Amino acid sequence: MRRTLLNARILTMDTTCREIERGWIALEDDQIVALGEGEPEPVADEVRQDMGGDLLMPGMVNTHAHLPMTLFRGLGEDVDDRLFRYILPLERALVTAEVVEVGARLAVAESIRGGVTTVADMYYFEDRIGAILDAAGMRGVVGQTLADFAAPDHDSMDEGFARLDALADLYAGHPRITASAAPHAPYSTGLEVMSRVAQWAADHPGLPVQMHLAETHAELDWAANTHGCTTVEVTDRAGLLGPALVAAHVMYPTEGDIALLAERGVGVAHNARSNGKAGRGIAPVTALRAAGVPVGLASDGPMSGNTLDLFAQMGPASMFQKIAGGSRKPLPCIDVLRMATIEAARVLGMDDRIGSLEPGKQADIVRVSLDDPRLHPIYDLASALVFAALPSDVRGTMVAGRWLMEDREISTLDTGKALADALQVAEGFKAHIIEIDKTKT
Amino acid sequence: MRRTLLNARILTMDTTCREIERGWIALEDDQIVALGEGEPEPVADEVRQDMGGDLLMPGMVNTHAHLPMTLFRGLGEDVDDRLFRYILPLERALVTAEVVEVGARLAVAESIRGGVTTVADMYYFEDRIGAILDAAGMRGVVGQTLADFAAPDHDSMDEGFARLDALADLYAGHPRITASAAPHAPYSTGLEVMSRVAQWAADHPGLPVQMHLAETHAELDWAANTHGCTTVEVTDRAGLLGPALVAAHVMYPTEGDIALLAERGVGVAHNARSNGKAGRGIAPVTALRAAGVPVGLASDGPMSGNTLDLFAQMGPASMFQKIAGGSRKPLPCIDVLRMATIEAARVLGMDDRIGSLEPGKQADIVRVSLDDPRLHPIYDLASALVFAALPSDVRGTMVAGRWLMEDREISTLDTGKALADALQVAEGFKAHIIEIDKTKT
Repeated sequence: MRRTLLNARILTMDTTCREIERGWIALEDDQIVALGEGEPEPVADEVRQDMGGDLLMPGMVNTHAHLPMTLFRGLGEDVDDRLFRYILPLERALVTAEVVEVGARLAVAESIRGGVTTVADMYYFEDRIGAILDAAGMRGVVGQTLADFAAPDHDSMDEGFARLDALADLYAGHPRITASAAPHAPYSTGLEVMSRVAQWAADHPGLPVQMHLAETHAELDWAANTHGCTTVEVTDRAGLLGPALVAAHVMYPTEGDIALLAERGVGVAHNARSNGKAGRGIAPVTALRAAGVPVGLASDGPMSGNTLDLFAQMGPASMFQKIAGGSRKPLPCIDVLRMATIEAARVLGMDDRIGSLEPGKQADIVRVSLDDPRLHPIYDLASALVFAALPSDVRGTMVAGRWLMEDREISTLDTGKALADALQVAEGFKAHIIEIDKTKT
Repeated sequence: MRRTLLNARILTMDTTCREIERGWIALEDDQIVALGEGEPEPVADEVRQDMGGDLLMPGMVNTHAHLPMTLFRGLGEDVDDRLFRYILPLERALVTAEVVEVGARLAVAESIRGGVTTVADMYYFEDRIGAILDAAGMRGVVGQTLADFAAPDHDSMDEGFARLDALADLYAGHPRITASAAPHAPYSTGLEVMSRVAQWAADHPGLPVQMHLAETHAELDWAANTHGCTTVEVTDRAGLLGPALVAAHVMYPTEGDIALLAERGVGVAHNARSNGKAGRGIAPVTALRAAGVPVGLASDGPMSGNTLDLFAQMGPASMFQKIAGGSRKPLPCIDVLRMATIEAARVLGMDDRIGSLEPGKQADIVRVSLDDPRLHPIYDLASALVFAALPSDVRGTMVAGRWLMEDREISTLDTGKALADALQVAEGFKAHIIEIDKTKT
């Protein structure tokens, strides 16, 4: 049965970034089958839905997140040693499969409310996270974390790989959920484990690998001291640099590293707010993209980036490159929108299916109200979206042809219950945090 | 008659930044007379209003804006020569008193919707802007621009000063609108005009002076070439550095300049997004504040900063200092909130009346809904406000004891008409822009 979304302003994000002032999109099942300007020809048994002049744009693609960390949102703000002071002890003591579910459900509600239709996650108990994404109708990449520190869901690397294999089996052939290996970082896995992941990836074509890469100065020192080269080069020695790899952060690549990433076809997840808040500097996004490396926007975990929508990332991403470049010209608004949609899809290896509004693509669509006075006048739609639009302007979110949210009401998840459950878990966390603060002052 | 706002979470922004988990604020006429925890004692003839657990915080103070430039919002994004290509020609050709009114009305609606209760403006036809702020019930500083380029409202400096005198007369003794002199910048006024403004300021104690200062490299070159010193030093020679001065931007002060600004008691308006988008680098906010210079957040004009709320400025302001400082520690969230409220009030010389919720202060109060899942859990209220809250979370805005907005409905201004009028004016601008783009490609 054909459904037609009518009377919409449309931003396609196709190769020409075509804008349609007033047009329509026709859907069949989970796909876009046609779109155009003005009024479409009537089709038998067609269902029509008037968009009231709202904007339809591609669903946004969040290329790097730790969804259950909503439960840690804003904790240890402005504290430099928060990873070792709070995150690792709390995860070890309190993060169970059930806690992960509670955090992920809040995250999924927030993502849908913010216009994100696809999210690449790396955390623990990813089978549970996949189930929550699936139940809510979202699209996701679920990455089993592998690390040498005591992880909440595996005590040995063999156990970690066993979980990863089970995850790959669980979601094999799933239309919206994709399993993924997520070695934590070069320094926290090492050459041997990274090589084993590379082998696993070769055995599982089409499944992405996610890893933090070149994120901290300590990581660069580790690579130099242990292997006498850059951390990107260590990763290459392990055979892990390739089109399957989604490298998160990439703050400090050398020129040689950038060339290598481009040559190997690696995609980068750029976490502007998380990096800015950590005082880590400005990632060389302009240089990476100029070299041909696709870069997608990302939220990082809510303990680092606070929110999970990409509107919060777009302005900072553009401003950071302009500051680094000393001019208004770097990373113009339309490129920022690419990095939130089609280029982000390319980072995840999914640009054949999502990231733009074109016939043949999945119907992952966000409906954005342009009613707020704060957005007007609009001389440049891209500028309005990057520097004035908010997640609260998102009126509807569709994945694979199904509205997950209409008029800001999510139909696939109980938002109130998700929030109440999260607040209850957070009470337990707060008690534990008070204990930590008592012992470490 | 006493009115009591009950059942509220309260962030006072007093000297201890006291937070009250559940409390009340009592008002009489335009003032706060008491506040406390729990339930207040009943008072005869008292009117009580339940805040439903929402947050009450001080109204935000925008220390630098060009309100009517809503009409230019997002124009020439990513274009380096936009000032000379678009702004000045458009202002010269199209900006009349009526156009200023239309732009200001949209700006005032947006400000109230975003929780801003006081705004310091510098533009043209400021008598009209004052009238619109006044009619909408807002608090404002209206600054008559003085500049050596052809201005829309004066052809000579004498005419500019005549307008300034008339403005000061018009708003003498007004409880919410304060007149102000606004020499555009040192390079566009010169030593002689700045000296004349300094004399004017001495003759008008209590009225602020607003000026762009140390904003661009071209301005530094002008000062070095013309006066053999820094632009801050030229301003001092003119006698303009003093507690009355609100210096906007201050991107490139030397160490000596910072000491001089502190010694003279100058306040700084920090326009994080505008500066970031212009690729101008990162203002030395940490150093300015460490030297004792009060720094307030500011939106700048919507052609530069796009939106007029301060939520959009808080995250970038903090991130920029953390990036510059290479650590999470600089400009913690609570200090960012100070810069949006009490410290901003100090920049404008109004901290005896506004900027915090304390008995004796004006009842300028913002009611913020904390219902959105994106804000939770809240381990740190300041973090939630700086890095997750949005202008759309503002439920009510009160100035001088009067609700200008309740449940997101503004009662003092027709928001729909303000938007419609602005869109009509923008159509004329668009036609002119097409002509400009034809001649300059």
